[in-house]
Amino acid sequence: MTYVLYELAGKDDHKFSPYCWHSRMALAHKGLAFESRATGFTDIPGVCGGQHKTVPILEMGEKSICDSWAIADYLEETYPDRPALFSGPEGRNFAAFVFDWTNKVLFPQIAPCVMLDIHDQLYPRDQAYFRESREARIGKTLEAFQEGRDERIEKFGSHLGPLRQALENSPFLCGEKPMYADYVAFGAFQWARTSSPFKLLRENDSVSAWFERCLDLHNGEGRNAPAFY
Amino acid sequence: MTYVLYELAGKDDHKFSPYCWHSRMALAHKGLAFESRATGFTDIPGVCGGQHKTVPILEMGEKSICDSWAIADYLEETYPDRPALFSGPEGRNFAAFVFDWTNKVLFPQIAPCVMLDIHDQLYPRDQAYFRESREARIGKTLEAFQEGRDERIEKFGSHLGPLRQALENSPFLCGEKPMYADYVAFGAFQWARTSSPFKLLRENDSVSAWFERCLDLHNGEGRNAPAFY
Repeated sequence: MTYVLYELAGKDDHKFSPYCWHSRMALAHKGLAFESRATGFTDIPGVCGGQHKTVPILEMGEKSICDSWAIADYLEETYPDRPALFSGPEGRNFAAFVFDWTNKVLFPQIAPCVMLDIHDQLYPRDQAYFRESREARIGKTLEAFQEGRDERIEKFGSHLGPLRQALENSPFLCGEKPMYADYVAFGAFQWARTSSPFKLLRENDSVSAWFERCLDLHNGEGRNAPAFY
Repeated sequence: MTYVLYELAGKDDHKFSPYCWHSRMALAHKGLAFESRATGFTDIPGVCGGQHKTVPILEMGEKSICDSWAIADYLEETYPDRPALFSGPEGRNFAAFVFDWTNKVLFPQIAPCVMLDIHDQLYPRDQAYFRESREARIGKTLEAFQEGRDERIEKFGSHLGPLRQALENSPFLCGEKPMYADYVAFGAFQWARTSSPFKLLRENDSVSAWFERCLDLHNGEGRNAPAFY
């Protein structure tokens, strides 16, 4: 049986979903081979008999699992003898804490820096759906939403305090080696890097150094994927 | 040798500093006896020969340590056979992440709900210092700063997502049992509870249930201390 990971993709094969990156890094962390299948937003109903509404979806033969948390838990349960994603409940809770913080604090900062660029790199068949659904949600055009990012980015670094504090004494959030909490935070920056040429991080920041280390993990799983920089 | 913990206190012996609570809970967690010494803001220069600028200060005979992180690290190093405060570097990083998040996200929400009440319960000798230094920092009177808290508190719960997400599957942030990350977050809510009768948490919230569990820890170390509710 080969694992198949359905991941959001754009026309230049950029896999850009932060949640799909959680699962891709988790698979690589466990040393599991998988086939990545590029999936457009409007392709999802055609995947696995239409039983899932979102990606990532991990397919194994007849079975499939949707949702990055469900996938992480499945991998941890199924492969207890391979490198751990969580050092027990505390590690899972740390990742959960970072997950919510990433969604609530980082994403609202990143989205208006990359949203139009995401649209532009989508498969043409996805663009109308994306524009319509996102513009309804944000209440303005994608163009207006992304405008002014050069000024806004100046303050981006001020939101990274929790990452900096955690990285003060070790190379990864989880210590000497990365675990799932690292991949959760990594997904946010990799989302930006695969969606847009617009850079979020200053080079002399400890978060930037950590992100570069994450890109190199597992034989450059993150660095070698198609991206803008 | 008996440990002495110098803690910020007000006139009704309310120990109200969130950072001092980190250290008090850490000492209790390690099962160490200590003498708590109530300290006003303006008393600090007279403690331990004036060598420290802030509390908590942990004094052991001739030696003393200032700063809640230094105290936690000292306790963890000195008592490796007693219950661990950190499950290794990951656990320390989790606590560091929560520490920054607490300072940057929770404190700015809590401070304008309790700042005038803190002033009112201080030793009279501390009140002028506190009013002057805080009003200079916030740019308005303590009275104006605290005004409107009944309306502001409505949105307080929306900031607690990371705690809720981490508490979804276990009673404490650190899993089945509390560790230092729990005490760091606990300090924020205990700060409010020892400073002001104004309640922050709704009773049917998972964060409220966790806080109650924390209050009961170590023979009610948190619950039995003088407080407003």
